[in-house]
Amino acid sequence: MSAEIICVGTELLLGEILNSNAQFLAQQLALLGIPHYYQSVVGDNPARLQQVMAIAAARSQVLIFTGGLGPTPDDLTTETIADFFGVPLLERADVLRDITEKYAAHDRIMTANNHKQALIPQGADLLPNRTGTAPGMIWQPRPQLLILTFPGVPSEMQTMWHETAVPYLRRQGFGQETIYSRTLRFWGITESALAEKVAPFFELSNPTVAPYAGNGEVRLRVSSKAASQSVAMEAIAPVVEQLQALGGLDCYGADDDTLAVVVGKLLQAAGDTLAVAESCTGGGLGQQLTSVPGSSHYFWGGVISYDNQVKASLLGVDQGDLAQFGAVSAEVAQQMAAGVRSRLGTTWGLSITGIAGPDGGSETKPVGLVYIGLAGSNVPATSARYLFGSNRSRDAVRWMSVSAALDFLRRTLLEGDR
Amino acid sequence: MSAEIICVGTELLLGEILNSNAQFLAQQLALLGIPHYYQSVVGDNPARLQQVMAIAAARSQVLIFTGGLGPTPDDLTTETIADFFGVPLLERADVLRDITEKYAAHDRIMTANNHKQALIPQGADLLPNRTGTAPGMIWQPRPQLLILTFPGVPSEMQTMWHETAVPYLRRQGFGQETIYSRTLRFWGITESALAEKVAPFFELSNPTVAPYAGNGEVRLRVSSKAASQSVAMEAIAPVVEQLQALGGLDCYGADDDTLAVVVGKLLQAAGDTLAVAESCTGGGLGQQLTSVPGSSHYFWGGVISYDNQVKASLLGVDQGDLAQFGAVSAEVAQQMAAGVRSRLGTTWGLSITGIAGPDGGSETKPVGLVYIGLAGSNVPATSARYLFGSNRSRDAVRWMSVSAALDFLRRTLLEGDR
Repeated sequence: MSAEIICVGTELLLGEILNSNAQFLAQQLALLGIPHYYQSVVGDNPARLQQVMAIAAARSQVLIFTGGLGPTPDDLTTETIADFFGVPLLERADVLRDITEKYAAHDRIMTANNHKQALIPQGADLLPNRTGTAPGMIWQPRPQLLILTFPGVPSEMQTMWHETAVPYLRRQGFGQETIYSRTLRFWGITESALAEKVAPFFELSNPTVAPYAGNGEVRLRVSSKAASQSVAMEAIAPVVEQLQALGGLDCYGADDDTLAVVVGKLLQAAGDTLAVAESCTGGGLGQQLTSVPGSSHYFWGGVISYDNQVKASLLGVDQGDLAQFGAVSAEVAQQMAAGVRSRLGTTWGLSITGIAGPDGGSETKPVGLVYIGLAGSNVPATSARYLFGSNRSRDAVRWMSVSAALDFLRRTLLEGDR
Repeated sequence: MSAEIICVGTELLLGEILNSNAQFLAQQLALLGIPHYYQSVVGDNPARLQQVMAIAAARSQVLIFTGGLGPTPDDLTTETIADFFGVPLLERADVLRDITEKYAAHDRIMTANNHKQALIPQGADLLPNRTGTAPGMIWQPRPQLLILTFPGVPSEMQTMWHETAVPYLRRQGFGQETIYSRTLRFWGITESALAEKVAPFFELSNPTVAPYAGNGEVRLRVSSKAASQSVAMEAIAPVVEQLQALGGLDCYGADDDTLAVVVGKLLQAAGDTLAVAESCTGGGLGQQLTSVPGSSHYFWGGVISYDNQVKASLLGVDQGDLAQFGAVSAEVAQQMAAGVRSRLGTTWGLSITGIAGPDGGSETKPVGLVYIGLAGSNVPATSARYLFGSNRSRDAVRWMSVSAALDFLRRTLLEGDR
């Protein structure tokens, strides 16, 4: 028994979007332990989609479609699948009602086009779409063949997968063997330095350990395949523990942890509060911190001091120092942190000032130069200097600045515990 | 004549990496005007790879492979292709020399494994890999069938594509036609409403018009295939113009435009400046605005007033109004906008306050309720109320809030022109 992923959409053939749906579904199939040997991409073209279906139905028993469920005329997946099996489409009154209600809730008017989205092949079950208007289907058109369809919008597809498809597949007896993985996350160490530290672990066969790197972060994935998740977890646990010990402070978390999540937990545990002052990141640090639900318990807000006048007026940075040292300097970073801390009355003030590029760099202050400032209640303000490299993009420098700031606070909070 | 992309790698089937190679090659084929109807992904498995090859060779005339050219035992693409056509592999002395030299240059020792990378099917030409050790091949194993292989490392593959494959394909007469596209971007209209407005355009055959939607944005892609880019551009121009006219204010831009880019251009053209006050987006609006290089010309900064105390202390929002109307209200949105405008001394103040979820919603103020406030120099502060739907994720509500705020300012700036 194996599954096959079929992504439908001319935009994929034109290279307009990355096929992130295929990656998500591939990961999910691995988690359920469902073998998966082929992926296909085909355009919004009924004849070619039928050809791909014929090939897939002959070699795989679970066909997972994404895309082509929308309201427009080129969304043809549902009718092409029905055609392939010679089954008529029926309009589902409950779906039509659901779409109508969703439009009304957003103060929008439904169009004739949307009626199409209520059509499902006779005999197929609905795969409800709670967050969008295009439902999918679960259908066994013949024995040993199961079809699931999803819209192409990743967030809708993922919700539908988790809420309906996974429970359904488990009820059908899928997911009896499982691949279970944990991912350790590192900041402040290069991939090659970490690889050297943990080299013997790469030789293991169960669990396996593999490194990944990107955007300044390094990850180690520890995976085990076993009859049950608990057996796999048992195989993984001691390896994870040893890797965490080897990683030390550089290992900031695991799995879904982000630096913002980890910092949030540390702040909340300490009963501390935080304010930020941002220059080159323009709000990105606050944005990351508040991406965590419940962050209002410890994050109070801050100042986006993109213009130097704002650094002086709202944060109290000394005009003379701004002129003497420049906006991108240790002195200004520290004053920004201290200023936002005292104005908001928080335990900590965290600041970022740097040159994100592509312009604005100089010989002494190149693109990628960033200062992080930190002010606390009982300690003098400190700062750290980073050189992220002038060959990095503006987005990358800004992302790494936000991460470095969070990591700077994380290490300070952890060291304070000792 | 059409091309097909075949990506080989178990890591793709496990969802460990995104298939960015398929997107790159798809874009490149479109630029060369080479039709491309199918993409396949298959693991490092000779039997299944042969099966995929048989299907592809029967329906496409140019097969482009990525992955499986490395030195490890599971890299099997070259030998599987040779096997499929019953042709022996020959060791190329020049390739072996090149690999040896590359290893020496990095102070590394070549292993026996690397010998494998010097094997090429008899009759095939080398597709040199200047930056890595795994070369690819260009091979016409039979008339009307051309095979190109590339390593899976994106940077190596892309260099090889540009330096060798494109000139080769042009010499073979490919790339005489080109596909040229433009994408119009819309905010504030649903996909189905826009589709109804522009329905007749979907019937066109050259150029073609197709809709896409996601994260609250709708896009129309206008594509033309022609002998040259200038001819394609000519075919597209009048259709783009008509669609823009039909879209009216809902059409905010084209191609790489973002709402932040468009708003930035409008502000700069008017000589206006902007400050922001953000609650539930926590800095995301400033982050978007400053993602545009040169945004310091019009964006001065702002206040992240996540906590209500900060709304009062740094923005001057009335404590009584906060208590009476709540933080998520038209009154507070307007006072936030007016407050940040007067404190920073900018032309405009733009604010966001809302309930991003997943918690914090109520019957009267559900998750997804967001107010945008706007204050200008000559007009009283205004606000708009949005219901993004309580079924949306925190990330989605925050993203749509930022986009709605930018769009609100955009429309105001455009209407001011009249």
